[in-house]
Amino acid sequence: MVENRPPDASRRNERSRRAIHDAALALVAEVGYPRTTIEAIAARAGVGKQTIYRWWPTKADVLLEAFLGLGERTAARGGADAARGIPDTGDLAADLKAVLRATVDELNDPAFEAPTRALAAEGIVDPRLGAVFVEKLLAPSFELYTARLRAGQEAGQVRADIDPRTAVELLVGPLTHRWLLRTLPLTHAYADAIVDHAVRGLAPRDAPVIS
Amino acid sequence: MVENRPPDASRRNERSRRAIHDAALALVAEVGYPRTTIEAIAARAGVGKQTIYRWWPTKADVLLEAFLGLGERTAARGGADAARGIPDTGDLAADLKAVLRATVDELNDPAFEAPTRALAAEGIVDPRLGAVFVEKLLAPSFELYTARLRAGQEAGQVRADIDPRTAVELLVGPLTHRWLLRTLPLTHAYADAIVDHAVRGLAPRDAPVIS
Repeated sequence: MVENRPPDASRRNERSRRAIHDAALALVAEVGYPRTTIEAIAARAGVGKQTIYRWWPTKADVLLEAFLGLGERTAARGGADAARGIPDTGDLAADLKAVLRATVDELNDPAFEAPTRALAAEGIVDPRLGAVFVEKLLAPSFELYTARLRAGQEAGQVRADIDPRTAVELLVGPLTHRWLLRTLPLTHAYADAIVDHAVRGLAPRDAPVIS
Repeated sequence: MVENRPPDASRRNERSRRAIHDAALALVAEVGYPRTTIEAIAARAGVGKQTIYRWWPTKADVLLEAFLGLGERTAARGGADAARGIPDTGDLAADLKAVLRATVDELNDPAFEAPTRALAAEGIVDPRLGAVFVEKLLAPSFELYTARLRAGQEAGQVRADIDPRTAVELLVGPLTHRWLLRTLPLTHAYADAIVDHAVRGLAPRDAPVIS
């Protein structure tokens, strides 16, 4: 439908979408997800409520798209993003620590924390939204880890009998667990410990110990 | 205050609490957490709304206490509970697999799944409730894992330079991550893979490989 509209309408739509995204992210950060309403998002974005309902089924869907947009903008600015893949310096533990430390920083960043928590919590009780959350937000980074672990297998840094996709959750799982449930502070030292423990498990027994 | 009341009132209170717990668990399983209200819990339990508000600040607190009561009743029936500790047969991997497999079964049990998901999701966005969730529900089992891993250190099954409390999250984290976010099916095979990978990392390099 958009392509049949004059260019002005298309640009206006794009501006509205962006304003709605920004309003949703700002409100979640300010008043929390439960008290963020479609009405409040519409008022802050300067659009009608119906505009939002026409484009998204629920406020969780608005927030998810806003959050994905935020990630893309961060990537476009050349920030610490996963889009360029996990480095392969030949030192598997060092490469994984760099990525997990960057993830710790991102999860501790208030701009990311409130919307990510809200979306994760919604996905936990709503399987449809949870599937979108995993597909759009998590799966792309899982693939980068899988690729790095597979390269590690080819280079003899990772045991050949390990399924890389399972190994990804051995790295990401303990980090996400601590962050989501706040079991203890989420620090670089914890990221390093996860990698050290996991790599000594993943590395072949006859390979030199990487630390 | 309870000890100053006549025994009848105390028994009546106990019956009411139990009825409220049962109503909360049943409603969450039937209509989901967001649509479970204090009003509905009161109606189903046959008590006044004010009775509930007098005892608990929020519906999440009702559900948390109900869930803890459920766990205690399961333990009292001699079910697969953690209260008796993690077995120590001398085979660390086998002992951990037994416990993680039992956890998989519990998490996949519909009677536990709905309230646990609801409480976890609430705790993720509400730090106060999250702290209670961790302290009451998770910390006791973390201590059992820590004790088993410490015994493993004394027996030479676990490297001496590992902090057992950190190692706990290397086991529990990947399981909880997959369950909460539904990244892939939660199976016994996955529990076994987590243990195999983690133990090969946790075991001393010069120890025989346990598998």
